[in-house]
Amino acid sequence: MIVLRREIGDVLRDARQHQGRTLREVSSAARVSLGYLSEVERGQKEASSELLHSICGALDIPLSVVLREVSDRVAVAEGIFVPDTVPVDLAGTVSRRDLTAVG
Amino acid sequence: MIVLRREIGDVLRDARQHQGRTLREVSSAARVSLGYLSEVERGQKEASSELLHSICGALDIPLSVVLREVSDRVAVAEGIFVPDTVPVDLAGTVSRRDLTAVG
Repeated sequence: MIVLRREIGDVLRDARQHQGRTLREVSSAARVSLGYLSEVERGQKEASSELLHSICGALDIPLSVVLREVSDRVAVAEGIFVPDTVPVDLAGTVSRRDLTAVG
Repeated sequence: MIVLRREIGDVLRDARQHQGRTLREVSSAARVSLGYLSEVERGQKEASSELLHSICGALDIPLSVVLREVSDRVAVAEGIFVPDTVPVDLAGTVSRRDLTAVG
């Protein structure tokens, strides 16, 4: 089964590490505990809507961009073709991606 | 503030109503209580990953499609341009959409 909180956690961790930031830095900026953020990143805890909003703010990534990345990853896991688009990626730059799911 | 659970609730309700199904039918198919589904649809309760999976299954809509729709709506609310793509819409058919965010 595809577990949404794990996918969200992976995207948040990837974004944080891509920015070269520590759990401590981001949890402090988001005003959440380090332990909570760590659990969210590992998919062990559901992030509430309010705290997900705070974490995205701390990472300076729009919620919609995080959700789009999660959607794309879940689509691949579900074996669904993801149309070729030009999304804003997690680093904030525009890149062309060509995700093709394994049927 | 954009509240994710409200956006998810709206998408789930829209999908159910588009299918002409009642809360009772979908909650039964998803094996969740009618009250719980109603609260999720109204954005009053966070859906756990497991129950969101069940609800998507009951609606016969891939989780990724629900997330993509949520992402698109959040992007518009955030004033972010959504690239013109050819997604599978909630009815399961392919439609061309041209969402342009209000900056």
